[in-house]
Amino acid sequence: MVSPSEAIARRAKLAFDAASQRLPSGSRGDAVRNNALLKIKTHLEANKAEIQSANEKDMALAKELVAQGKLSSSLVSRLDLFSKPGKWQGMLDGLEDVARLPSPLDECTFAKRLAEPSGSSGALDLYRITCPIGVLLCIFEARPEVIVNIAALAIKSGNAAILKGGKESVNTAAVMARVLADALASTEIPRDFIQTVETREDVAGLLQQDKYVDLVIPRGSNALVRSIQQQATMAVMGHADGLCCAYVHDDAPLEGTLGSVLESKTDYPAACNSLETLLLHEVHLEGPMWLALSASLIRAGVTLHCDARSLDALSLNQALDRSKLVAATDDDFDTEYLDLHLAVKTVTSLDEAITHINTHGSHHTDAIFTKALAEQTQQEQEHESAAGTFVRSVSSANVYVNASTRFADGFRYGFGTEVGISTGKTHARGPVGLEGLVIYKYVIRGQGNGPQRSADFTASGRQWSHADVEKRYPQL
Amino acid sequence: MVSPSEAIARRAKLAFDAASQRLPSGSRGDAVRNNALLKIKTHLEANKAEIQSANEKDMALAKELVAQGKLSSSLVSRLDLFSKPGKWQGMLDGLEDVARLPSPLDECTFAKRLAEPSGSSGALDLYRITCPIGVLLCIFEARPEVIVNIAALAIKSGNAAILKGGKESVNTAAVMARVLADALASTEIPRDFIQTVETREDVAGLLQQDKYVDLVIPRGSNALVRSIQQQATMAVMGHADGLCCAYVHDDAPLEGTLGSVLESKTDYPAACNSLETLLLHEVHLEGPMWLALSASLIRAGVTLHCDARSLDALSLNQALDRSKLVAATDDDFDTEYLDLHLAVKTVTSLDEAITHINTHGSHHTDAIFTKALAEQTQQEQEHESAAGTFVRSVSSANVYVNASTRFADGFRYGFGTEVGISTGKTHARGPVGLEGLVIYKYVIRGQGNGPQRSADFTASGRQWSHADVEKRYPQL
Repeated sequence: MVSPSEAIARRAKLAFDAASQRLPSGSRGDAVRNNALLKIKTHLEANKAEIQSANEKDMALAKELVAQGKLSSSLVSRLDLFSKPGKWQGMLDGLEDVARLPSPLDECTFAKRLAEPSGSSGALDLYRITCPIGVLLCIFEARPEVIVNIAALAIKSGNAAILKGGKESVNTAAVMARVLADALASTEIPRDFIQTVETREDVAGLLQQDKYVDLVIPRGSNALVRSIQQQATMAVMGHADGLCCAYVHDDAPLEGTLGSVLESKTDYPAACNSLETLLLHEVHLEGPMWLALSASLIRAGVTLHCDARSLDALSLNQALDRSKLVAATDDDFDTEYLDLHLAVKTVTSLDEAITHINTHGSHHTDAIFTKALAEQTQQEQEHESAAGTFVRSVSSANVYVNASTRFADGFRYGFGTEVGISTGKTHARGPVGLEGLVIYKYVIRGQGNGPQRSADFTASGRQWSHADVEKRYPQL
Repeated sequence: MVSPSEAIARRAKLAFDAASQRLPSGSRGDAVRNNALLKIKTHLEANKAEIQSANEKDMALAKELVAQGKLSSSLVSRLDLFSKPGKWQGMLDGLEDVARLPSPLDECTFAKRLAEPSGSSGALDLYRITCPIGVLLCIFEARPEVIVNIAALAIKSGNAAILKGGKESVNTAAVMARVLADALASTEIPRDFIQTVETREDVAGLLQQDKYVDLVIPRGSNALVRSIQQQATMAVMGHADGLCCAYVHDDAPLEGTLGSVLESKTDYPAACNSLETLLLHEVHLEGPMWLALSASLIRAGVTLHCDARSLDALSLNQALDRSKLVAATDDDFDTEYLDLHLAVKTVTSLDEAITHINTHGSHHTDAIFTKALAEQTQQEQEHESAAGTFVRSVSSANVYVNASTRFADGFRYGFGTEVGISTGKTHARGPVGLEGLVIYKYVIRGQGNGPQRSADFTASGRQWSHADVEKRYPQL
């Protein structure tokens, strides 16, 4: 008996294989994929009314739950695809934006001549060519437009995908899924290339289908991501926590540190790249830095959870709103507040700061504030700077010198799109663009009509060359 | 209560963090690591007698088990580190070889200017720098020299490692582990950077320590690898199966196909890159190709498990040793023989061959034999060749045109070393060299003394640049 999950996963794999066989390589294949994205756009536009009525149904149900206190009201606005100006159109335009990005496929990233011709054996060449991963399982929460975003990224990168949205958007998702499938059916990409599933049970089953599903990409709450990481028998790309730290070194410049730290905490506190822990070199307990930082953070509404020394240093400052000053507990330094709270700890050295970050941080984004490069004396530049030590020692996806943690984002990095941010240590790390959805295959081309045998290199004295050759898709 | 596995994993993580903090970046860090490799060599040489006596103990125990029929005799020769000339010395020389390889660390693989200076904010730059993954768990079988090989690769790539060898080499491994730790204690690399564990229970516990262990690399039998893939809660790199296929297209050249296919099957049948299934275009059932292939394979001792059509085509050939011709069952096409057996199937088209390979192969190494590029007419070159379709459609780590599957190997690819061959679809695929043991971090450097805020790009009109800048390790 084939389980429903296995059937879905198998269909995805067959659709992937069929597309691999059908779609040409290089720019002709990219054109087919881009055409499919534009077809999806047209079909969504043509079915706007139906999608809108499904979306209204979802919102009505959600509002009832909100009235019963079972759902937060912010969820209704995330569900809503039409009231907010530009949201629907932004989703449609996103399809064109993705189509315009350079294809991540069929790139030659490595090329060597393994051996020159010898006897009847022609030259032997090795190429490394980027290619799709296979079948993706993408799990995300309420916002229904994510279905279209992720479908676009999957199609552009040549990966089949199974999508699971939040249960609150189930009616919208069902209509959009049908429209997507209809759009694909009018292209060379198989209808099953993008599938959607609706229940947690479907997901639980799919997380065991490592024979067919190659990569899971969860986006959502810490609990969701962690549960998926625990259940999945295949690779998972994403991040559960964003416990970002900033360390203010003894020589940090006042103006830059103040502005960047403040933005790190307050620009969008619910984001994964927001600041959660501030590490303060003890020299700043006296002097203007800590006074200025605490004052401006509190003024911005932030509650500071301070260790004893940093709290004590503010004890005489009557100008501060004392209700925003709290004594920190150990737990504060392991907490991702996602809110206007900040843990503050005094450290006596750069090393202590690094150790704290590697132990308590979540390997997402961490920053040091320190004397700028241009301010360093000739003599200082001859030794490793604090920034240099910090960057090589902090084991995180994004390590910043004198910059807000909020820069950790695929669009800000110039990737044109973002699949997510990964805190994993393999495959892709940090903001992940289309590059993170591809892998590579090694291609060997033997020329001539004679045999190409490895034993000739030991038995018959054929010589390895291993010379670099031009990196381009091989003529075959 | 901290479990023994957790304690070991935690020590490895602490050793990794300590080394990250202690070792400088660039060539100075590489020099420290290379020095450690040479120290290990010296310590192994100085402790040869003790290692030899431990190795003799392991062999004596293994021989007893062989006498009782509980172990295969080939295992004793794999255990034996000293009788075979050059084995011990080769292990020592390997340390120097790895030291001589270019460091995979601290390479800048991407660099962009995010923004030009603006007001008091200096320029903002983004770099992607290669760095170690963290803690590796490497599991392998009998040969004790693998401990030293893998320790060398881990140290060179900056990764802490926990090693588990075969239980038959436990005495040798224990002495070598102590010698390794002593050697490291005389360097700047922490003693716990390389640890060994002895039991399956240790491994089972470590496979749950995803908080500390980042990547598992199993090398050994299919059953071992598959069981680890099932148990591990972190990324696993390797391959369980090597079910390699060769497809002989209708226009394949006789001489080259014959030589390459024969070597693929017979050069080293127990290797993962040996041929297991031959797919034959039906045109070859009549004509010289199948006659020549079957005759030379059988002459080399190969038993052919043929489908009905290919078997039938040989029915009139009285010169063949009929005992080597067997009717294939369905199972034969899903079997990795690792022996002088070969499944043979007739296909009617390139597409059928591709579908068979994507369905029954193990995504390791698959080859097509077809008309060489130089033989194609101008008109043929204007359309996609069979080789072109095969290469883009076959979803395997190594896809070959007119070459023996035996080329799938890191040394043959010119990587200088091989961690293993991966059939995974993420991180690293195919033969994996030192590059497969690193990941990257994104480094942002804000210049000047002013703040670096993402909001300035929306609120204050600061402009993104995203211009390419020189790819080099940033001055900090």
